[in-house]
Amino acid sequence: MRKLQFTVSGLLLCLSFGQVYGQSDAGRQEADLILDHATVVTMDEAYRVIENGAVVISDGLIVDIGQRDILERYEATNVLDVSGDIVMPGFVNTHTHLAMSVFRTLGEDIADRLHRYLFPLEAQFADLEMVRIGTRLGVLESIKGGTTTLVDMYYFEGAVAEVLDKAGLRGVVGETIMTFKTPDADKPSDAIQRTIDLIHQYKDHPRIFPAFAPHGPYTNSTETLREIAALSEKYDTRVTSHVAESVRESEEIAARGARSSVAYLETTGLLSSRLLIAHAILVDDADIALLKKYDVGVGHCVSANTKSAKGVAPVPAMLARGINVGLCTDGPMSGNGLSVLDELPQVGKIHKLNLADREAMPVRDIVAMATIGGARALGMEDRIGSLEVGKQADIIIIDTTAPNMTPIFDYYAALVYSALATNVKHMIVAGSVIMKDRQVLTMDEADVIQEAQDLSARIAKRLYNGGVRMDNN
Amino acid sequence: MRKLQFTVSGLLLCLSFGQVYGQSDAGRQEADLILDHATVVTMDEAYRVIENGAVVISDGLIVDIGQRDILERYEATNVLDVSGDIVMPGFVNTHTHLAMSVFRTLGEDIADRLHRYLFPLEAQFADLEMVRIGTRLGVLESIKGGTTTLVDMYYFEGAVAEVLDKAGLRGVVGETIMTFKTPDADKPSDAIQRTIDLIHQYKDHPRIFPAFAPHGPYTNSTETLREIAALSEKYDTRVTSHVAESVRESEEIAARGARSSVAYLETTGLLSSRLLIAHAILVDDADIALLKKYDVGVGHCVSANTKSAKGVAPVPAMLARGINVGLCTDGPMSGNGLSVLDELPQVGKIHKLNLADREAMPVRDIVAMATIGGARALGMEDRIGSLEVGKQADIIIIDTTAPNMTPIFDYYAALVYSALATNVKHMIVAGSVIMKDRQVLTMDEADVIQEAQDLSARIAKRLYNGGVRMDNN
Repeated sequence: MRKLQFTVSGLLLCLSFGQVYGQSDAGRQEADLILDHATVVTMDEAYRVIENGAVVISDGLIVDIGQRDILERYEATNVLDVSGDIVMPGFVNTHTHLAMSVFRTLGEDIADRLHRYLFPLEAQFADLEMVRIGTRLGVLESIKGGTTTLVDMYYFEGAVAEVLDKAGLRGVVGETIMTFKTPDADKPSDAIQRTIDLIHQYKDHPRIFPAFAPHGPYTNSTETLREIAALSEKYDTRVTSHVAESVRESEEIAARGARSSVAYLETTGLLSSRLLIAHAILVDDADIALLKKYDVGVGHCVSANTKSAKGVAPVPAMLARGINVGLCTDGPMSGNGLSVLDELPQVGKIHKLNLADREAMPVRDIVAMATIGGARALGMEDRIGSLEVGKQADIIIIDTTAPNMTPIFDYYAALVYSALATNVKHMIVAGSVIMKDRQVLTMDEADVIQEAQDLSARIAKRLYNGGVRMDNN
Repeated sequence: MRKLQFTVSGLLLCLSFGQVYGQSDAGRQEADLILDHATVVTMDEAYRVIENGAVVISDGLIVDIGQRDILERYEATNVLDVSGDIVMPGFVNTHTHLAMSVFRTLGEDIADRLHRYLFPLEAQFADLEMVRIGTRLGVLESIKGGTTTLVDMYYFEGAVAEVLDKAGLRGVVGETIMTFKTPDADKPSDAIQRTIDLIHQYKDHPRIFPAFAPHGPYTNSTETLREIAALSEKYDTRVTSHVAESVRESEEIAARGARSSVAYLETTGLLSSRLLIAHAILVDDADIALLKKYDVGVGHCVSANTKSAKGVAPVPAMLARGINVGLCTDGPMSGNGLSVLDELPQVGKIHKLNLADREAMPVRDIVAMATIGGARALGMEDRIGSLEVGKQADIIIIDTTAPNMTPIFDYYAALVYSALATNVKHMIVAGSVIMKDRQVLTMDEADVIQEAQDLSARIAKRLYNGGVRMDNN
């Protein structure tokens, strides 16, 4: 089999190129990292795929990209020969709750789980330590699945920001704001203040972006939502929320006199290009027109929505209207994985089934949602989402020699219907190698797993030895 | 992290147990292989889960199973300490076309693909070499995903039988029978004769079981189907077929004057406990009653059925009637994977969504379909499908320390919604270790991949350089 080598002596390679192309070293531009022998799936506007290509990285940015002959112009300390593997933008996970990884496999197959099971569970167990441990586990799994940017929404988001930063990922951290008491805020104004504090703290950070995260339109008052709208404008900061997700939500919004959740949000001033809504299942044509009018981003969590039997978001209609749709795993109690890559086949299959049309939701559109679509939904398309000169070097490399990835006649089809999370081989974020040969370089993997197992053992003991009262289980 | 050791000096371990329990070696029964420190998910009638357990294997059979203290009664040459990982029956894939792995990612997102794209493709490329190479690739992927028994249905099934046998798997091999010319038979009688030859050849084989495989009710004449019914009774041999899969099929069956495919099959004499039908999407209550009356087995290929936009088989209704339902990946141009494990979350999600009921299709029922359900659908439940004393030692071990498998509060939920194919760590079939630490011991993995890549390169050259005429592409 082809063997990958991380050549520290890239200079030697460059010298030999120099000889081949008859150039002197003096004329070469220095680069930090070169990806050689790459099959580059760029996800740029032209959807260029470059076979036998190369990507040149310096100061965290992509400085060149093209056929291998561009390499005659560069020399680099590090050269990663990817032997024909797929080189593509990292995935963008537009909605998750990383820390909930420590609750994974709890309370399956239970109707109305959020209110009957989940909120009581969080009231008992979600504290700063749980968030730190669960986020570490969730970040580890995210990296191993190829996600380079993610939007988290939970409690103690300061701890989430720290874990993301240390792991080297790019993240939007949304402190949950809700009418009733949450694990880290007695009232909505406390959560709002925590968000403002985070905004100040991470003002100049290149990879961490705090956001306001009202839990949903029905779990906040109109006044709170209006305040958040004003604050997001004042700080030019993103807002993210669960919107149009459940019948219960629709009923409570109807009781407030609004036609729909999206229509209701318009009255609060929250609809804008700063808003990213997750789910958007219960939206009609009028709602879709509103989302387009205000340039609202949408996170499509197909896996969680089907498992919760909530329905299918009309994403093909949204894409036809030009709405920016990204993909999301939701929290690991929902999907239950944190791999955007494993969402791809589900997106294809569910929409084909739903529309009774095998030609619906073609493979390239799905890969686009997972990358540049997510970047657009986050307003980050100038920095991430595709491999183009001047953009951040947020890159993943996918093994094309695994049995399940053999053969490949169509790269997009292979990514959507063949690939597994474990086919992600290397990851680079902002030019730094985060994972190499599936070993995460920025975390102690064994320690992360052990810590999570210890915590879950303590949770299990309290849950099953009478420490917690639930409606069921 | 926990480290797995394949202890050749199992005797030493047994001696130390002897000391602990005060027994002499003389009183111990010799065994071939012991799985120690196992979390045994038995899938027996009582759905026993044994934590801190052990499984004892001799002569290809499970001779004991229980808490670790059973080990005081045995000594074994080989002891595999699985360090708490899940030990469970291997998966049963009730319907696939292994060789089609070499076509993977061809012709995605095309309506009416079977007749417009696939049959012409096979007419050009399906020959003995393609079947041998594609089956090797498919078997490699199947092993890596934890499938120990599979039902294949394609052409040149003699080659399929050879590959399965050499790899050490258990398989039903069904030579496709169809009205029109196929890659290996000019007419149905040729394919029937090939099947009879295979039946004679593998009469006493412990793991290879030839079957009659009429492609479908609408792609065969009534006379051929009647002949197959008589022959399957004569040879006491299994029959497998695509049934109630598509609207096109229903229309052609209606033109023959029958109410449905299942009702039509009753008139041919094919409905019996020897029959395994794949898909069963377009079945109503009357059809389900017929399937129950004749004890017909059903293969549920949820992934392929959703991707092809054909619909959702009413499996919850079938299970409620006590029909034996197993799971299937279908061919790797359909799903597109060959891992039964990756079907599990899809089965749960699709039925919850379809019934708008989060409590539908609970996790344990899904694991049951993938194991004992498939065994029953094949009439092999006396030999495989659960871990019980006297049954074949067809066993897989699943890594419980991967990030995506952490933590586990519910073993069935973890298997259904957390596990990936790559979490399958070891495989044992009929007592022989087929895969250890994800290295397949019975195949040269690199050679299998290289051969498939070379073949696909030749196919691509002929397809895209004008060698083949298709209706599209």
